Amino acid sequence: MAGIDLNADLGESFGVWRLGDDEAMLEIVSSANVACGFHAGDPAGLLQVCRSAAERGVRIGAQVSYRDLAGFGRRFIDVDAEELLADVVYQIGALQAIARACGSTVSYVKPHGALYNAIVANREQAAAVAAAVHLVDAGLPVLGMAGSAFFDEAARLGLRTVAEAFADRAYHPDGRLVSRRERGAVLDDPAAIAERVATMVASGQVTAIDGAQIAVEVESVCVHGDSPGAVQIATAVRDRLRAAGADIRAFC
Amino acid sequence: MAGIDLNADLGESFGVWRLGDDEAMLEIVSSANVACGFHAGDPAGLLQVCRSAAERGVRIGAQVSYRDLAGFGRRFIDVDAEELLADVVYQIGALQAIARACGSTVSYVKPHGALYNAIVANREQAAAVAAAVHLVDAGLPVLGMAGSAFFDEAARLGLRTVAEAFADRAYHPDGRLVSRRERGAVLDDPAAIAERVATMVASGQVTAIDGAQIAVEVESVCVHGDSPGAVQIATAVRDRLRAAGADIRAFC
Amino acid sequence: MAGIDLNADLGESFGVWRLGDDEAMLEIVSSANVACGFHAGDPAGLLQVCRSAAERGVRIGAQVSYRDLAGFGRRFIDVDAEELLADVVYQIGALQAIARACGSTVSYVKPHGALYNAIVANREQAAAVAAAVHLVDAGLPVLGMAGSAFFDEAARLGLRTVAEAFADRAYHPDGRLVSRRERGAVLDDPAAIAERVATMVASGQVTAIDGAQIAVEVESVCVHGDSPGAVQIATAVRDRLRAAGADIRAFC
Amino acid sequence: MAGIDLNADLGESFGVWRLGDDEAMLEIVSSANVACGFHAGDPAGLLQVCRSAAERGVRIGAQVSYRDLAGFGRRFIDVDAEELLADVVYQIGALQAIARACGSTVSYVKPHGALYNAIVANREQAAAVAAAVHLVDAGLPVLGMAGSAFFDEAARLGLRTVAEAFADRAYHPDGRLVSRRERGAVLDDPAAIAERVATMVASGQVTAIDGAQIAVEVESVCVHGDSPGAVQIATAVRDRLRAAGADIRAFC
Repeated sequence: MAGIDLNADLGESFGVWRLGDDEAMLEIVSSANVACGFHAGDPAGLLQVCRSAAERGVRIGAQVSYRDLAGFGRRFIDVDAEELLADVVYQIGALQAIARACGSTVSYVKPHGALYNAIVANREQAAAVAAAVHLVDAGLPVLGMAGSAFFDEAARLGLRTVAEAFADRAYHPDGRLVSRRERGAVLDDPAAIAERVATMVASGQVTAIDGAQIAVEVESVCVHGDSPGAVQIATAVRDRLRAAGADIRAFC
Repeated sequence: MAGIDLNADLGESFGVWRLGDDEAMLEIVSSANVACGFHAGDPAGLLQVCRSAAERGVRIGAQVSYRDLAGFGRRFIDVDAEELLADVVYQIGALQAIARACGSTVSYVKPHGALYNAIVANREQAAAVAAAVHLVDAGLPVLGMAGSAFFDEAARLGLRTVAEAFADRAYHPDGRLVSRRERGAVLDDPAAIAERVATMVASGQVTAIDGAQIAVEVESVCVHGDSPGAVQIATAVRDRLRAAGADIRAFC
Repeated sequence: MAGIDLNADLGESFGVWRLGDDEAMLEIVSSANVACGFHAGDPAGLLQVCRSAAERGVRIGAQVSYRDLAGFGRRFIDVDAEELLADVVYQIGALQAIARACGSTVSYVKPHGALYNAIVANREQAAAVAAAVHLVDAGLPVLGMAGSAFFDEAARLGLRTVAEAFADRAYHPDGRLVSRRERGAVLDDPAAIAERVATMVASGQVTAIDGAQIAVEVESVCVHGDSPGAVQIATAVRDRLRAAGADIRAFC
Repeated sequence: MAGIDLNADLGESFGVWRLGDDEAMLEIVSSANVACGFHAGDPAGLLQVCRSAAERGVRIGAQVSYRDLAGFGRRFIDVDAEELLADVVYQIGALQAIARACGSTVSYVKPHGALYNAIVANREQAAAVAAAVHLVDAGLPVLGMAGSAFFDEAARLGLRTVAEAFADRAYHPDGRLVSRRERGAVLDDPAAIAERVATMVASGQVTAIDGAQIAVEVESVCVHGDSPGAVQIATAVRDRLRAAGADIRAFC
């Protein structure tokens, strides 16, 4: 094993409301998917998490979303392509200024929640998000799921696509994630998760929910920042990867 | 007379709701103060107005505001300096990306509505806005009122300050604007407004509401974009200035 | 012809942004579908339109929506049933208090925009909206489309369902509306629209887009409040119905 | 001692974001000041807290606020009286429907945060809030601070005013609360707080921050629901009051 990126969703508080332990996670991950205000993240909170990320040399990604604070961006919205494109440009730009104000920069873009899931297959929205990233900066990589419509569209525009695997989510044999509404969708044992990630990274394979071995493309491993035990799981994953000789480092 | 800038507030629609005739105004002004989403302006609408501005060579300024869609940014909000700073950074960045997506850029910053009025005297908020501009780009000029706390603070940070005069607003003898709640606060005769602006620009003087001649510093003239007759007034002002030999051109 | 109800969407301004001519429409319709703040309608504006409706004896209905100001409630949102139920209860209650403050009351509920369209077929959301109305007041009728999942669910709970037809929208032979994205979806000739409505009301039939005569159930006719020519069309419809001997009166 | 009311702010989560332990607090207090969606409280969350309150026989009050999710209603907003009135009517109505859906009702109104503080002295806003409550239901008591402009205005309209004292906040000798920004403003020792409350309730006196004994009118004691140790402090207060022979019961 050489280098591997660990990414997590951060900056997802809003006003008085806290979510996750950003400071602790920033000690572990190499890439921070920072909310941009549409599903979470008030500007003052974003400034703080970007400052912390900058101090620790953690890369900042723009975690763009549908405009949906009440639903935390977890609900599909049938937004027109033109509006979605503009929403994504707006969010990336907002976070770019925040990051620059902290002496850092936005190094990549990762869609959030329902948008992430929608553009696995929704070609129109996938194209809109890809076009938005390209418009802002054709050199910005996108982080997402290999084989998605989003990656197709991003690649067509010449954007670098960075495939991620999920540390604690079960996979179907066809490579799709098991829905959170189904049993066994989310793993919670830190040691088991860490072992699984180490295997993924070393062999490019993961055991699907039916026991089959499937291939998984992984340049970055997503660990969750807000679940109970998030910090403990992320720590276990990092330590196990390091024990296997991997260097935790940003993909960009 | 040499060159003079005309600025107007644009991009102040939101979703289905329209405000003002941006296309017509962009034919007249040299600087467009474009809303940034906090008091008005959905991203798709902002993209459209920035595209139009770019096509016509009209400069784009970030019209930053309190977060207040319901009140259109016209209500003072006692927001902490740290939050205000972050809100302003966020808004400028969002518009920068929108402008860049149109092949243009944000060339200056102008506070909107209640924020504009507050930072004439509110030192803490004035300093926060100035610091935010400085953090994003120390080369960005700010457009506002000569003699304001905001200009003091901006100048202290080395920002260029550009003083504007209002085409259709009455002045008190001490240089303050007459409140919109008072009679005679807003002028509405295009020819009279045009004549008044020509005098301001040529002589640096304006007749205050009590008849006194007062000095007014003016590098840019603000015309309104959304009042009834806005386009007609702006046209009259432009034509009168041109007749006096002035060149309507952006200050930056 | 005896009595027939005319309904229109009103109260759809927000803050400084105006939409439609509520005062003119209130002179024509018998039922006002008043926005509840989730897709449009700030409380002060709602108070004003309810006051006007009350003064004219126009019935007030709660026009409930997805939470989506930026999209004006026109975008499908995949919201959970439990959340949708609560959102609808909240909106009806808010408008009830506004209406009561004007000496009136909420007399019915009509879903708006994308929610209206979704619950024609989306059983889960249809059931949530019906359950919400039932929870607030089992005596509240619902206004909507005959044959919809929403009407099934409402009827199952014992709610009165009131079928509406659309004055200016084209129908498919199976009774569905032609999508606004298709040509010929929206009619705009006042005289033709008025004639068509008179036929609908008198005979229960309408000519579909392919020329077929189809049955249409109609206790209320929906006229639009915000399209160009809205007031003229609504006036033509009212005058034509009156000429045919119909009494324009609320269904409740 | 006979009966005394304990009130706390509840329902202040929003979407995924949790605040305070509502279930635990509902085991202790007799009156729940439930958020109404303007500073906190999504409808589904409000439904849940009202259901819990109803099951336990805890009274529900409408905790009305400025419209300010990002600032949690803690920032003064210079909103016009007419708009504020409508905003308050809207919020009370929304919560009334939610409460009714749970088989309960809104029994009183308590302004929140910056609005609470503003209407101690801001006569115009105080009158607007009082008028709003009166418009919705002239029989609704208001919970607030004795001697405030709000109580004056409420009393003028014939509303019942219920004076509360704060369990954990320091008082100036003139009866005003010490600002949270000053040292010693918030007490945190459960036993000391409980003792202080018992004295307040028994004697109508409290020791001000300078050591002076001052009179305090108290029909209800406000305990905080979201501070660290909130549940422990509330429990200590309740137990101490009971030990002194007081019956914890709603004022209405």
